[in-house]
Amino acid sequence: MPENPEVRRTVKIEESVLSFNEKKAKEIMTLHRSKGIFTINVMGSPGSGKTTFIIETIKALRDKYRFAVIEGDIASTIDSEKIKAIGVNSIQINTGGICHLDAGMIEKAFSYINLDETDIVFIENVGNLVCPADFNLGEDIRVALLSIPEGDDKVHKYPMIFRACNVVAVSKTDLMEHFDFNVTSTKETLKKLNPEIKTFEINSKAKESFIEWCKWLDERIGSVFRA
Amino acid sequence: MPENPEVRRTVKIEESVLSFNEKKAKEIMTLHRSKGIFTINVMGSPGSGKTTFIIETIKALRDKYRFAVIEGDIASTIDSEKIKAIGVNSIQINTGGICHLDAGMIEKAFSYINLDETDIVFIENVGNLVCPADFNLGEDIRVALLSIPEGDDKVHKYPMIFRACNVVAVSKTDLMEHFDFNVTSTKETLKKLNPEIKTFEINSKAKESFIEWCKWLDERIGSVFRA
Repeated sequence: MPENPEVRRTVKIEESVLSFNEKKAKEIMTLHRSKGIFTINVMGSPGSGKTTFIIETIKALRDKYRFAVIEGDIASTIDSEKIKAIGVNSIQINTGGICHLDAGMIEKAFSYINLDETDIVFIENVGNLVCPADFNLGEDIRVALLSIPEGDDKVHKYPMIFRACNVVAVSKTDLMEHFDFNVTSTKETLKKLNPEIKTFEINSKAKESFIEWCKWLDERIGSVFRA
Repeated sequence: MPENPEVRRTVKIEESVLSFNEKKAKEIMTLHRSKGIFTINVMGSPGSGKTTFIIETIKALRDKYRFAVIEGDIASTIDSEKIKAIGVNSIQINTGGICHLDAGMIEKAFSYINLDETDIVFIENVGNLVCPADFNLGEDIRVALLSIPEGDDKVHKYPMIFRACNVVAVSKTDLMEHFDFNVTSTKETLKKLNPEIKTFEINSKAKESFIEWCKWLDERIGSVFRA
């Protein structure tokens, strides 16, 4: 590809942008650990069910933890309004044309969150199965949503994001009968990409499908702040 | 954001990469017009139904036109194998980590296509509702897929890609009853973004749902090569 010398230069400068991002992400992580804030970066394709996943998790755990949500989108405030509708502080980031969130955006968004009155912050990334994987946001864990209608080939086609996350939530499992999605082989492929990965199956029409994930999250938070 | 001077430089260099891409796209377009090749850039989220859309269109029009397909993916040859299985020449581009196709990649892929034995080339872009919008591939038309399970809010959240395309194919309409997707208001929103846009509703389980789109495509090809 690099007939154009600018393309070669771009690669170098991208590395510099990433190392700047990494530095900022570490500062965010250090601050949040000192304040007892647990942060979850939620990634996935457009329409994979990220907002619903966040809302159902908040509903299940709001008696124990205080939440805030940072919503990332190219445009609109649709998602932050959904979060506000359940009575939770939500900060909308509109990236304009940018295809992912970065640590600088997160640092700014956190200035609208009272850290002394918050335990868990969800960050809903821009709907994109590619670019968000490269940008550390100073999060404690990364969750990737993979919906049944998207198809089980997505793990093969977009391996980077699955390699980079701690949890995969297979969503919209109520639609299983309409699609040829093999959950067993998907779990095996995910384990090969990332042996530490945890997979949960969820479905917003069956609240009980969130129990296992919420239990795991609760234990993970405990282990981070006991450690 | 630009506390880091490298970020400011990146913007400048991105502009240069885009203008280099634009130049190459024009060369591709000029060559293809002279050879009577019609090219269709198919974009959309992961799992929105791009490959199925291409396959059903080829099946409907293969008695009249000779097809080739360029498949863009981060990894895997899953899609190009599906195209080969219906007896059509398919070139797989694996972008590694790159989130979109560019004109340089297309130029290389075309070296594997015999232009004298081809009428229509489909380019299936990387599944991504953001980045492909910026990269002209020397195509005649751009089609964006939007599947019912993704939700009708995607037009508000990712306006750029819909502004940049000629056609929107609303896919998986057989799942309409399971989702709160308003096709009428989506068409209105699309028209506001892009008054020239054409919208079709398709569903791979009902082949007749492709008739209207195929008729439109056939007329469009005729108008380009008669002009």
